[in-house]
Amino acid sequence: MNSKKFLIAFDADDTLWVNEAFYNEAEQKLESLVGPYLKTSLLKEQLYEMETRNLSIFGYGVKGFILSMIETAIEITSEQIKGSEIQQIIDVGKDMLTQPIKLLLEVQETILHLENEYDLMIITKGDLFDQESKIARSGIADHFRFIEIVSEKNEEVYLNILKKNEIDSNRFMMVGNSLKSDILPVVNIGAHAVHIPADTTWQHEQISDFEKAKMQYHELTSMGQLPALLDQVFRNNQNREK
Amino acid sequence: MNSKKFLIAFDADDTLWVNEAFYNEAEQKLESLVGPYLKTSLLKEQLYEMETRNLSIFGYGVKGFILSMIETAIEITSEQIKGSEIQQIIDVGKDMLTQPIKLLLEVQETILHLENEYDLMIITKGDLFDQESKIARSGIADHFRFIEIVSEKNEEVYLNILKKNEIDSNRFMMVGNSLKSDILPVVNIGAHAVHIPADTTWQHEQISDFEKAKMQYHELTSMGQLPALLDQVFRNNQNREK
Repeated sequence: MNSKKFLIAFDADDTLWVNEAFYNEAEQKLESLVGPYLKTSLLKEQLYEMETRNLSIFGYGVKGFILSMIETAIEITSEQIKGSEIQQIIDVGKDMLTQPIKLLLEVQETILHLENEYDLMIITKGDLFDQESKIARSGIADHFRFIEIVSEKNEEVYLNILKKNEIDSNRFMMVGNSLKSDILPVVNIGAHAVHIPADTTWQHEQISDFEKAKMQYHELTSMGQLPALLDQVFRNNQNREK
Repeated sequence: MNSKKFLIAFDADDTLWVNEAFYNEAEQKLESLVGPYLKTSLLKEQLYEMETRNLSIFGYGVKGFILSMIETAIEITSEQIKGSEIQQIIDVGKDMLTQPIKLLLEVQETILHLENEYDLMIITKGDLFDQESKIARSGIADHFRFIEIVSEKNEEVYLNILKKNEIDSNRFMMVGNSLKSDILPVVNIGAHAVHIPADTTWQHEQISDFEKAKMQYHELTSMGQLPALLDQVFRNNQNREK
């Protein structure tokens, strides 16, 4: 990479824009659809169990989530769910795929502030088509020099991205809401990681307190704090090179 | 790109391995499921119409196809389809996503023959997760220097790939079964294109005879003919450089 000195990569869902809240909303709509069939209220647990079971076949993203919702609805209603209700589940999913992008607080200003000094990147996982569509609809795509949509975020994937962009790990920083996907593998390859927790995070993206305690990473409460942190982290490197 | 002289890119589905046949098989299974509900046999047309309608929401790939099969089944049976039958449709889709990869005739030998002389690449469109999984299961992934999974194959996408790999269009050749995705946009950016028709090609990937007649591209009946064609096409360039 032959331009700026540092590469700052952002996760997209629940880091740049709202995402998990729409999954939770969909779950509530599913609950009201299948509710009349149920004696117990184990829907949430069964849906998560189904999503986990299907992950190796469908991967991440809304389309797999819709299919898991349908399968859960069939299973939990002992196949009594009606065709019209399944159509409603699909429509809930289509709404998720087409709704306007809601940028999170301070995202726009922070990106504008940083783009002159740093190379900015998006690294997001999920459906290729859905993620591309969200990035296009976000209105901030042009501020990112690189965009990577990957099927999984692990050490190997991050190492490949660094290699492809010819950047050392100590010049790379990942910013995201998921300790499991955005922080843990990045810390493990010796790069910088900044955790900005989201209001709600999918169960699948959580890690144990034990793992948390071992890791060296930065924690911020809002995106607006990022520029100051960057100054602090990268100032040393810059001075050394002068 | 600083290695070999020419970049030969292959489409994957129905160029390297069987794909459309599995969609057709799934369609037949759907037909036998909804058949008892139907007076007419317009399933094929309605499914295609649904797929086309959903393309801008779901993109290409099996997961979107499963959802379109379910929606078609609900619509065509006037919502009478049962939960257990919808589960069977999902299972048909899961089989598509997990079945073994069947390489097409002469693919393996041709790839092995070409890899020493040319840089080989896969350019495929569809679900990121599904395509990665198929490439991994194909057993031939290691022979390709570059792999690109894209959500659409148009001139802009091909130009970006050439730019990223720093290769001139006259040193790039695309090999594929779809005139619409593998040939037309490639010819339009001044690169070489080789059409190897598949036994069956999805309606969506077909183009008019008028468009066909305008294009300059190579047509082969089997993959085994590719090495000889490459010798012929690129010999001139190579001699000129000696």
